[in-house]
Amino acid sequence: MPGKLVVFEGVEGCGKSTQLKRLQAALQGSDRLQQIQQQGVVPEVLTTREPGGTALGLGLRRLLLGYQGEAPMVSRAELLLYAADRAQHVEEVIRPALAAGSWVLCDRYIDSTVAYQGYGRGLDLALIEQLNQVATGGLVPDLTLWLQLDAAAGLARTRQRGAADRIEQADLAFHQRVQRGFEALAQQHPGRIVAIDGAVDADTVAAKIFAVVNRCLEQWYAPSLMV
Amino acid sequence: MPGKLVVFEGVEGCGKSTQLKRLQAALQGSDRLQQIQQQGVVPEVLTTREPGGTALGLGLRRLLLGYQGEAPMVSRAELLLYAADRAQHVEEVIRPALAAGSWVLCDRYIDSTVAYQGYGRGLDLALIEQLNQVATGGLVPDLTLWLQLDAAAGLARTRQRGAADRIEQADLAFHQRVQRGFEALAQQHPGRIVAIDGAVDADTVAAKIFAVVNRCLEQWYAPSLMV
Repeated sequence: MPGKLVVFEGVEGCGKSTQLKRLQAALQGSDRLQQIQQQGVVPEVLTTREPGGTALGLGLRRLLLGYQGEAPMVSRAELLLYAADRAQHVEEVIRPALAAGSWVLCDRYIDSTVAYQGYGRGLDLALIEQLNQVATGGLVPDLTLWLQLDAAAGLARTRQRGAADRIEQADLAFHQRVQRGFEALAQQHPGRIVAIDGAVDADTVAAKIFAVVNRCLEQWYAPSLMV
Repeated sequence: MPGKLVVFEGVEGCGKSTQLKRLQAALQGSDRLQQIQQQGVVPEVLTTREPGGTALGLGLRRLLLGYQGEAPMVSRAELLLYAADRAQHVEEVIRPALAAGSWVLCDRYIDSTVAYQGYGRGLDLALIEQLNQVATGGLVPDLTLWLQLDAAAGLARTRQRGAADRIEQADLAFHQRVQRGFEALAQQHPGRIVAIDGAVDADTVAAKIFAVVNRCLEQWYAPSLMV
């Protein structure tokens, strides 16, 4: 039985990285996950991210977030770099982990490209969908947790963290378009994308996420859990 | 009147970089180019290359040629990185230079991606053509000089130069498939791609290239040259 791919999405500062680590810890201590062991092995719970989930991706992450050339980065180049990072990540990390039965918790995936490069930069959505297909070979998340937060509130949080990267530095209107992108995606994929209120305190968010994931565990592994 | 895009193509060690610099020098000293001045300005002759013709591209060139991750680079990721480099290069460097009336001499362009990632790596040719279109917006060279050389002879030359990069390190069979890719392209685009024997000495190659370019100058600028 292959593992599960759970993706965290949302605007800058929505709390993805924090919640991803909390879900990893909660799952590792979860009785339910212990019960779905296969041939005596409890699934591992890995965390990873895009961009930057591989050695190649780390180099690309530095270019994408730290680029300081005199000319602005061309939007189509940016889109192709995210796709390259994803192609390497899916083949080197995600697919082998799922094949080994592991759970993969991933910070950003295909929806971020639609939201940032499609809605944010205004690139063609059909092209983005095709590049996502090329990069992933059709690998769609089992569950996408969208941490919903007002774009301005998210940016205010990132600014408290210190120096902003190239994407965080984009203006508020850009991040509001990104937010609308996530809203549109959630409407289009109600079965896969679950909206979580990201504006409340981290403990409350973590509890909601864990409740959603436990519901999925019951659906996905119903026969095993009844044993 | 926009400038001209002249591209050098061929297998590793075919002499592109040497001949590109020689053509630049020959054109800069050429009477014919002096004659085609526009509003009193003689066209500049720029040289550039792919990957690495921009600040972003330099970072990508280091990743593409120097990548040493434990896992091999995924071929689709490699393809997308070359496309990203090209998208930035065309918009930041090539199109503005052509719009200013300059000549652009470029070391590798769309045909290298067909030859290396299509014929060499075996990726889908229709996908590559589409990515070339996305990256260039349809900008095709005015002239492509294909320096024809046996793949084994070319590799032997590069090995004399010292440490081989990631692409040069690929096996001979790969470089022979690349060579067949260039052959197929030359058959498909007889008007744009001119084959030049790259196996002879550099002076002879340079003379042949200059003769071809002078013929093109006469065709392209016939009215100006008759003044």
